Amino acid sequence: VTDFRSDNTHGASPEILEALARIAAGTITSYGNDEITARLRERCRALFETDLEILPVSTGTGGNALSIAAMTPPWGGVFCHDDAHIHRDEMGAPEFFTNGAKLFPIPGPNGKLEAATLAGVIDDIACEGRTAKPSCVSLTQATEAGTVYTPDEVRALCDVAHAHGCRVHVDGARFANAAVSTSASLADLTWRAGVDVLVFGATKNGALAAELIVMFDQSLADELRTRWHRGGHRYSKMRFLSGQFDAYLTDDLWLRNARHANAMAARLAAAMPEVLMPVEANVVFARLAPATIAKLRAQGFLFYDWPLFGEGAVRLVCGFSTAEEEVDALVAALNSAR
Amino acid sequence: VTDFRSDNTHGASPEILEALARIAAGTITSYGNDEITARLRERCRALFETDLEILPVSTGTGGNALSIAAMTPPWGGVFCHDDAHIHRDEMGAPEFFTNGAKLFPIPGPNGKLEAATLAGVIDDIACEGRTAKPSCVSLTQATEAGTVYTPDEVRALCDVAHAHGCRVHVDGARFANAAVSTSASLADLTWRAGVDVLVFGATKNGALAAELIVMFDQSLADELRTRWHRGGHRYSKMRFLSGQFDAYLTDDLWLRNARHANAMAARLAAAMPEVLMPVEANVVFARLAPATIAKLRAQGFLFYDWPLFGEGAVRLVCGFSTAEEEVDALVAALNSAR
Amino acid sequence: VTDFRSDNTHGASPEILEALARIAAGTITSYGNDEITARLRERCRALFETDLEILPVSTGTGGNALSIAAMTPPWGGVFCHDDAHIHRDEMGAPEFFTNGAKLFPIPGPNGKLEAATLAGVIDDIACEGRTAKPSCVSLTQATEAGTVYTPDEVRALCDVAHAHGCRVHVDGARFANAAVSTSASLADLTWRAGVDVLVFGATKNGALAAELIVMFDQSLADELRTRWHRGGHRYSKMRFLSGQFDAYLTDDLWLRNARHANAMAARLAAAMPEVLMPVEANVVFARLAPATIAKLRAQGFLFYDWPLFGEGAVRLVCGFSTAEEEVDALVAALNSAR
Amino acid sequence: VTDFRSDNTHGASPEILEALARIAAGTITSYGNDEITARLRERCRALFETDLEILPVSTGTGGNALSIAAMTPPWGGVFCHDDAHIHRDEMGAPEFFTNGAKLFPIPGPNGKLEAATLAGVIDDIACEGRTAKPSCVSLTQATEAGTVYTPDEVRALCDVAHAHGCRVHVDGARFANAAVSTSASLADLTWRAGVDVLVFGATKNGALAAELIVMFDQSLADELRTRWHRGGHRYSKMRFLSGQFDAYLTDDLWLRNARHANAMAARLAAAMPEVLMPVEANVVFARLAPATIAKLRAQGFLFYDWPLFGEGAVRLVCGFSTAEEEVDALVAALNSAR
Repeated sequence: VTDFRSDNTHGASPEILEALARIAAGTITSYGNDEITARLRERCRALFETDLEILPVSTGTGGNALSIAAMTPPWGGVFCHDDAHIHRDEMGAPEFFTNGAKLFPIPGPNGKLEAATLAGVIDDIACEGRTAKPSCVSLTQATEAGTVYTPDEVRALCDVAHAHGCRVHVDGARFANAAVSTSASLADLTWRAGVDVLVFGATKNGALAAELIVMFDQSLADELRTRWHRGGHRYSKMRFLSGQFDAYLTDDLWLRNARHANAMAARLAAAMPEVLMPVEANVVFARLAPATIAKLRAQGFLFYDWPLFGEGAVRLVCGFSTAEEEVDALVAALNSAR
Repeated sequence: VTDFRSDNTHGASPEILEALARIAAGTITSYGNDEITARLRERCRALFETDLEILPVSTGTGGNALSIAAMTPPWGGVFCHDDAHIHRDEMGAPEFFTNGAKLFPIPGPNGKLEAATLAGVIDDIACEGRTAKPSCVSLTQATEAGTVYTPDEVRALCDVAHAHGCRVHVDGARFANAAVSTSASLADLTWRAGVDVLVFGATKNGALAAELIVMFDQSLADELRTRWHRGGHRYSKMRFLSGQFDAYLTDDLWLRNARHANAMAARLAAAMPEVLMPVEANVVFARLAPATIAKLRAQGFLFYDWPLFGEGAVRLVCGFSTAEEEVDALVAALNSAR
Repeated sequence: VTDFRSDNTHGASPEILEALARIAAGTITSYGNDEITARLRERCRALFETDLEILPVSTGTGGNALSIAAMTPPWGGVFCHDDAHIHRDEMGAPEFFTNGAKLFPIPGPNGKLEAATLAGVIDDIACEGRTAKPSCVSLTQATEAGTVYTPDEVRALCDVAHAHGCRVHVDGARFANAAVSTSASLADLTWRAGVDVLVFGATKNGALAAELIVMFDQSLADELRTRWHRGGHRYSKMRFLSGQFDAYLTDDLWLRNARHANAMAARLAAAMPEVLMPVEANVVFARLAPATIAKLRAQGFLFYDWPLFGEGAVRLVCGFSTAEEEVDALVAALNSAR
Repeated sequence: VTDFRSDNTHGASPEILEALARIAAGTITSYGNDEITARLRERCRALFETDLEILPVSTGTGGNALSIAAMTPPWGGVFCHDDAHIHRDEMGAPEFFTNGAKLFPIPGPNGKLEAATLAGVIDDIACEGRTAKPSCVSLTQATEAGTVYTPDEVRALCDVAHAHGCRVHVDGARFANAAVSTSASLADLTWRAGVDVLVFGATKNGALAAELIVMFDQSLADELRTRWHRGGHRYSKMRFLSGQFDAYLTDDLWLRNARHANAMAARLAAAMPEVLMPVEANVVFARLAPATIAKLRAQGFLFYDWPLFGEGAVRLVCGFSTAEEEVDALVAALNSAR
């Protein structure tokens, strides 16, 4: 079979596994007060060109929900795109971690929030005064639709957020794919544009299970650390979590993996009869005829239907380990199926 | 330095790291519907000689809090020993995951709950009817005091629990150390004695980060699965979590590691001037003179003071990678320090 | 001034105050185990022609949130109209009492949910399986738009709800106004149509502060009773809460008050230049010219702008104590203002 | 029958009922922005000789849980006496409203917390750093044991609290009984001694259902107002809640009622063979022979057994409407029963 279901069906980069093996011997202070975690923090400060605090977690859901909870009181409102993972796919994790905040899913073309629409929704809520306290705007970068916000778009949304008393969270499960898709610096993509907290994903791009909560707003750090512990998201043997991320940032592994995945998606998209969303990262949404879909599946190609994007819509995801031959095989099968 | 601070300052067993490397290639269904997780489930059924359901998590706090929440409504009461990790060390994780249940910490000698005391406390609560609904009894096996409940002791406590409408949770962060300490079968130590859910730890005994929620009461499985997802404790690349535990159970690695750690603790205890708790697992509590403590630390021996057990009390923990030479060095230093 | 702001700016019916004075002397069992509460329960059973359980509360927000929480797990989904009080005006009370459930506000004409739209939204959520577990459909009767569901409309919505594993809650803050607006029996308006729990309001219609949770699905009673106590919504001197509702149901006071309020609203509506919603209860939505609005206010008429229903929209509410003269004065002012 | 079960089996003072009747006509701004509530606030400022904010609620459980939640994060610790109503009798209301804080019940003679014991418990928790964040000390005034803290005792406890980063809440369900029992000013009993929030009860002392959250620390007001609304504890027709309390404070009704109840308790205590707690308010704990208890009950005297205070312990409560003749009848029955 050839698998385009998701980037999380892929395994782990050898570089990361080797790093884990390398740091596995001997004893080391547990719970995060170790030198590997300290080194990772320094690496992030250099990469983002600013002071910041970090907390490693092993799932994106955990990272997102914890971050949002540190910005949002139980009576707060969280504004996100209609398709956002935090709304659609986490079984209410943000509601759980915030103790009952309200999510306001907002439609927008190409999987993106638009600043004017966002401002309108927040204004509507704020004027009521009895619905929720606007507290957090959550962006997904790259989006669930496989598109990427430009630094200007991020800044426009952050400006709306801050003008309405909200902080900004970025769900960066595919942040690496977004980063390599633009020519912007990480700083320009995040804190310089106004982002307060980024959940920087590694799992989908080559780690075993590692996401990093990156706090540009360090005033959140104390409370987030407590929530992290209380939520059961603090590893005792932290070296094995920080160590994954440290290897991920070493020798540009994260960039190499993401560039490859994006390139594979572009190669795939080029062969599609009808692409439904701009292909700016590693995910392709296309419309195929039912017969084509059936033939591809019969030949062992795995991918998901995506009814959210209309009839015949499918999603094809390329990962760090997707081989060029796999893409070409799908393209060939597609051409012969039509 | 020589480190007796905790079993979680130790690294990971080579066998587990090798297993991770072995399963890292290729794509595989994510979120737990994979063959490695299925194999692990079968392995557990064989090991415990019964049907059961499992959910892998990466922290003990997560596993404990999720399990307790599946047994305990927000207005429920959870009964545990005074020293229990769930009460003292998890920053209210059970309260968070249950949405506000009440813990009733109960004193008991040698870190163990006693059936008669437990019954008295539950009766007191139940008769009020306005304090909490007795819902869960939580045991720690091996205990925080390094002692081990016999199957008969477990059964007596489970009988009290069930007679009062409570289910039984076992915090098994050091379950392997307890298991090798008795001659009982795993079945006798758990479900045959009345245990409903065991959180079977691997992290402290050689895994990177892996605990297994083992549900003997399978009626809890559906809700626990939802809570697990919502709590951000469901790995996307589950193979890397199930795979750790699978390797842990392969070729008796878990037993070999635990036997070694227990043996090291026994060797250490034998040399102690005053041992404060029966040494039945891998943890030694001893009283040392302040001068002795200072001398040992000056020589690079790391360990914690344990004021809970009185003045001069220290805790010394042996792990799977504690070398006999390290123990002997401490014994020698101790002898020359006196 | 003449006040059309809300039915909760009105005071209390003399009959209810007299009843309170009558039952105020002497001691009586507290917390709800008294004869007045027992009599109220019997009265409700007769009125609704079925067995049922009741819990008195003093606010609609409390009654709604408690009822919804008894039907909805923390990961549940609650489906309601876009304008619903539970979504817009209760600062997240349902999210608080459910410990984090998700509300799905759904548009619909005339302030009403439509069965087909409801089914579509639930299907969308249910197919995902990772957003929320469909658990509760909440109707408002009379609606926030001043319209009334017919028994057939209620039944159609209940059928959709039950077919999707949801229970049905009715926010009946203005249930009396709805009841007198139809010729249906209370049974036909509620449990015969499939309603599981009604929060039957008295506050807006002549009580000081009294709402009644009426459980047709009695399996909810035990848990709701616990939540009621834990939520601080259980009066110790219950006689003063049950007694209000008991007086409300005596000699058709509730019907008389509601009929009067509805009649006043109809009288008012007849004089409006543009009515925005069918006037089926005691609330009138109209569009007035800005100059007209200003003139009316200058003459001491109080009412709210209602931007939700467009520019120039205002809401005029008649209560049990609205005098015919007050309505006529507004009509006269309106005619002279145009 | 003659009823000594509780002060909440009593009815309501005529003065309060008359006040309700007097303010029941006409319309008035709802939700608390009315002149009666404003007048009540001014009255309280005069009475307590300081600036302060208020929120009226209808139950003590609601008032306590809301107040504590405004001082205590979800991972906070609340320190209270073992017998405290918030721990024993509210089915976890503080845990619910705080979203999972931990209560630490502390023993102490005569139902009172002692400063040294309190300091020890907080120190123990604080040194761990992984149990809970010390956040709130809750006193009950008068205590559940019918005793009263002196201003000096309150100050000593407040000093310990503040020195450990905790705020102080007073459960004043019987605050009137405490106030008349000392010669201290209300200011000396509360804010001058360090109290941050008092829940000032009227229900047990002549109101229908009225408690007042009195915030000396006004920085809590905004958040508490939001929690109050979200918790369903904000009356729409606030006049009927504020109005009760306003009447309660008019012409010293609250003092007259409390003085009477306390006097009746003293009269009763004087006749008891064995009084178990100092009788400083309106509650008497006594030990009676089983035969005596049976005889009294056979003659229609109602009161509760109180096993918490030992075998044969009973509780006898006098209310604002307890008649001298009722006390004398009990005394006579007691004398003839012995």
